[in-house]
Amino acid sequence: MRELYHEELDSITDGLVEMANLAGSAVGRATTALLDADLRLAEDVISGDETIDALHRTLEQRAITLLARQQPVATDLRLVVTSLGMSAALERSGDLAQHVAKLARLRHPGCAVPLDLRGTIQEMGELAQSLMARAAEVLVSHDVDLALRMERDDDRMDELHSTIFRHLMDDRWQHGAEAAVDATLAGRYYERFGDHAVTVARDVVYLVTGEHAEDLPPAAPVAT
Amino acid sequence: MRELYHEELDSITDGLVEMANLAGSAVGRATTALLDADLRLAEDVISGDETIDALHRTLEQRAITLLARQQPVATDLRLVVTSLGMSAALERSGDLAQHVAKLARLRHPGCAVPLDLRGTIQEMGELAQSLMARAAEVLVSHDVDLALRMERDDDRMDELHSTIFRHLMDDRWQHGAEAAVDATLAGRYYERFGDHAVTVARDVVYLVTGEHAEDLPPAAPVAT
Repeated sequence: MRELYHEELDSITDGLVEMANLAGSAVGRATTALLDADLRLAEDVISGDETIDALHRTLEQRAITLLARQQPVATDLRLVVTSLGMSAALERSGDLAQHVAKLARLRHPGCAVPLDLRGTIQEMGELAQSLMARAAEVLVSHDVDLALRMERDDDRMDELHSTIFRHLMDDRWQHGAEAAVDATLAGRYYERFGDHAVTVARDVVYLVTGEHAEDLPPAAPVAT
Repeated sequence: MRELYHEELDSITDGLVEMANLAGSAVGRATTALLDADLRLAEDVISGDETIDALHRTLEQRAITLLARQQPVATDLRLVVTSLGMSAALERSGDLAQHVAKLARLRHPGCAVPLDLRGTIQEMGELAQSLMARAAEVLVSHDVDLALRMERDDDRMDELHSTIFRHLMDDRWQHGAEAAVDATLAGRYYERFGDHAVTVARDVVYLVTGEHAEDLPPAAPVAT
């Protein structure tokens, strides 16, 4: 009985890791679709989001079954409840990757990103994917330092988001309102995606330390 | 013991209703702040969001305590788990109202909304507030028809959202990229706010009927 119990708890974490991996891959491919105006890749990301949604529903159902049958307490209970929130954040991340892909599809065969914003969008896409890869790693390793270091990369994401706005507000913006709308939305999708990855990592920190990430001392700088 | 148990369950619903009321009021006041460039009102909404965040944390804690102490099963268990998701959606709605208020503050003493979009933004604000008022009502009354009718109003919200885009894409758009960015963001905030209100109502439908709202026949048209 106890063994089954731990298998069920582990299967919840496994589900979260799988969702994070799928969302990370989706945002990476959506970025390529956006920058290369690749319709097939965009469609692929759009239809693939169903898998993440289904995992979310399965995980919710698993959590409810586990709560009903095993009636976990203390740390295990907190794990199950927190997992529900993490699953929702990951499901939402998949939606955001899908939104990026839809932007690519909407403007196809054109490209939604003007030349002077390509670098920024590319970096936001890479950062989004890397933040989500680390969220998956934190879910498995419970590495608090890694989780805290993610906050710094998310600050970089916020900077890039601001870069887009500065660009749009610049009097030299030549690409009209349509491109401004696309860039505003894309920027917001990536920024929110990063937030969700950080939320997942923060939740793990809370599970491991019992303290909220914002109350812990910042991670030591890393020489890179 | 059983009486305490039901009091605890009720207090979770009470918390959700309070959050919905606060979020509805916040989005209404944020809209006024946005349209009237009213800085004091905007600040009021921005600082008021803390109350919604605190209610969310209290509700999570209450749910965990209830799960640990009372180990509810069947419908009660589903209520508690679903409440966690509803609470997250309501907390997020509060954030979105706060984002609208921040847009008002950012452009003060100017107004972020050009004259030709005032009507659309006004209607989106009213719709957002009314959807959230009905979500609160559904939480109390468990009125499935009312919940299903909300979907139609949310369709109207999506139409208004599209109106903004059509406006922005129009060659006659004269307000530059900054106003385009503001309108894009405001539109998205209202649209997401409406989605969250509908999500809460859908979750109640699921709790009451055991069926997902999208699988039920649409509500009969109402003569209004």
